[in-house]
This record gives sequence, structure tokens and C-alpha cells, in this order.
Amino acid sequence: MSLARVHNFSISLDGFGTGEGQSRETPFGHAGERLHPWMFATRWWHENTGQPGGSSGLDDAFARRFLPNIGAEIMGAGKFGYPGWHENPDWKGWWGPNPPFHTPTFVLTHHPRPSIEMEGGTTFHFLDATPAEALATARKAAGDLDVRIGGGVSVLRDFLTARLIDHMHITVTPILLGRGERLWDGLEDLDQDYEIETVSSPSGVTHLTFTRR
Amino acid sequence: MSLARVHNFSISLDGFGTGEGQSRETPFGHAGERLHPWMFATRWWHENTGQPGGSSGLDDAFARRFLPNIGAEIMGAGKFGYPGWHENPDWKGWWGPNPPFHTPTFVLTHHPRPSIEMEGGTTFHFLDATPAEALATARKAAGDLDVRIGGGVSVLRDFLTARLIDHMHITVTPILLGRGERLWDGLEDLDQDYEIETVSSPSGVTHLTFTRR
Repeated sequence: MSLARVHNFSISLDGFGTGEGQSRETPFGHAGERLHPWMFATRWWHENTGQPGGSSGLDDAFARRFLPNIGAEIMGAGKFGYPGWHENPDWKGWWGPNPPFHTPTFVLTHHPRPSIEMEGGTTFHFLDATPAEALATARKAAGDLDVRIGGGVSVLRDFLTARLIDHMHITVTPILLGRGERLWDGLEDLDQDYEIETVSSPSGVTHLTFTRR
Repeated sequence: MSLARVHNFSISLDGFGTGEGQSRETPFGHAGERLHPWMFATRWWHENTGQPGGSSGLDDAFARRFLPNIGAEIMGAGKFGYPGWHENPDWKGWWGPNPPFHTPTFVLTHHPRPSIEMEGGTTFHFLDATPAEALATARKAAGDLDVRIGGGVSVLRDFLTARLIDHMHITVTPILLGRGERLWDGLEDLDQDYEIETVSSPSGVTHLTFTRR
């Protein structure tokens, strides 16, 4: 069965998946890059960005679960671009000509536009759809493979609220952002649907894995 | 130097230190006892409550740091009693004749009353004071020993906001309460004042220790 999976989704200790004040220059608002240093330090990230070295322990083991067996991604408009990107016909995402998804990638937006084929197997499709509808569409595109739910925060929360997530890897970075978008709002008793495993890393982050019971 | 310390303070994954709907029957509101099973399972708790057995690993090691070198506790009115306890002249706290504090214990309240001497070394004193004033008073009573800041949530947050905490042990229990009192609200960048260590326990909880830089 094709699973809906979340990987490498980082939140602060106070639960924010992004800071306040997102813009073209600051995709994560005032959080900057403070949520993700654990990932940038991994060998997996180094390999993907053409750098030597990188850590090869726990953080790396989690990070590289991002690609295997994934046949499509779903992301929100706020992950694909800065506020207002839909008014820019040339916007093709943050990631340059060869985005790291390498599959059909469905962008949820109220302003659909024609699909964009990128290098490396990523094609952006634009959908105005509910989470359940988007997941059905992405599953068809993924064949027998799984679908990654890529965020941002509100999209992940919508999928959790709709009880559509089968596997979720969240990383808690020990910083306090104070403001931004909270992941956990309105998800009382969500834990009862999952086996939750918690493991702290020498890097200081904590990896949480949620596996549907 | 006498430190202000926090021990065994449990919050949910979404940051709530107590649930909604606190009453004489439900001191933690709808959270019930779901925040603290890790503590009830320790050998330390079993010893203190006259039960055999109990775990003797990581959770127990953290739990039993509660008493050593502590000379006084400060707690809020909401930890000492149910909403409205100040109208009950017979209320002496939740803990029976021999409370687990065994030191002078200062209750912050806008309704002070005469001190109450309990068995086992605990004496409740009632103070209408700011966090800094209360800490100065408790330090005098503690002699050279440390002062425990016992909570609840709003008292701990007030002491953190006033930058008065030297050492803090927080336990994150992997449940989602959805509502109640959040510990981390309004504490942006608090992490920059502390070395933070994170360790996950086989019981499923995560222990966070904050040590002032």
C-alpha cells in the first residue's frame, strides 16, 4: 500500500515549523536557518550539495529516508514560494533548475498554472484541491510508491487533521522561536493514532517518529 | 551560590504543563495523570509512596535530583490548591499531613494567610510578592542551599521571563493535550541563555536540562 510520509520536518522546542515574517529573502522568517543545522551537517546533505564530508550517524540515517520509495510529493504554496509568487509567472520554486524532489510534485494553490518540468525528474503540478483529493491525485502519479507530504506547517497540519498521514518524522531543534506557525495546534489526542518513538541525537536535536497503529 | 532549580516539570509534546478544567477533583484538568507516568514508574517515586520496585534507570536518576541540596521551594497558588482554595480555611495542600517538600515552602498568593507547619519539615508560608522578592525571601530561609521553583506553569514562566532560573529539568511526554497552559509562550530566544542537553528515555519521554551559561 502507498503510504503518506513526512520526513525531515523540523520544529522548535516551542513547536514552530517556521518563524514570522516570511519573504523572498527569508523563507523561514525570523527563524532563518536555525531550525535545520542538524540536516545541513549530514553527509546526505553534503552529497546532495556537492560538499565533502558530513556526519554519518543518527541524523544522517534519518535524513536519507527522504527519497527512497517516494513517487510523488505534495507541498503547500508557502513552501513552493514567497508570499505573492503566484503573481510572478517566472517563479519556479527556491531550488534552482534541478530541485531535490526528482518526482512529480504537487503544489497546493488557489492560483493553479500550467505544469513546469524541471531537470532531474521533478515536475511541478499545481492543484486547487483538498488534502484527500490531492493525495488521491499524487498516489496515481506515484504508482505503487509512497507520497511525501512536504509541508509547510499549515499543509502538514491539514493532512494530520484529516488523519491522512501514515508515517511522520519530526525533528525538534532546541531553540525557542516565540512566534511563527505552530505545528501542533488543534491536534489534541493525535498521539493516540500512532506509535511514537523518540530518540535524541548527539547534535542536540530530538527525532520523533510517528507510525500509524 | 544558591541556585534556583526546577525539577521533574512535565509538559506535553505541544508544550502544555497542565490541561484545561482544573478543579479539586482534577488538579491537572483534562490532562489527568497523563503527563507524569514516567515519574510514577521510578523507584524514587515508589520509595516515597511506600511501594516496592520501580525503575532504576535514566528516569529514576533524573527524578531523584528533586530533593538533594534544596533548602526551600516556591510554588504558585495553582499548585498549592484548587481554584478557590483561599476561601477554604482548612486547605493545607494536596499532599496530606507529610508533604514531599521537607523544607520551608513559599506559596505565592494574593490572599496570604498564617503559616502552616506540617509533618516532615514542610512549613507552608504565604507570600504576595514578585518572583524576585519571593526568591530573595526563599534564599534566606534556605541558608546556603538551593531554592526549587516548583511551578505551576505560570509561575515557572514568570521566573523564566524574569531570568531567575539557573537550572531547569523539563520532561516532555509524547502526548498532545491540545489545550491548557503552555510553558513556552513569550520566551523567544530563552535558549540563548542556557546550555541545553536533550536525552530520550526508553520510557518514551525526553529529558531536557537547561544550565545557565
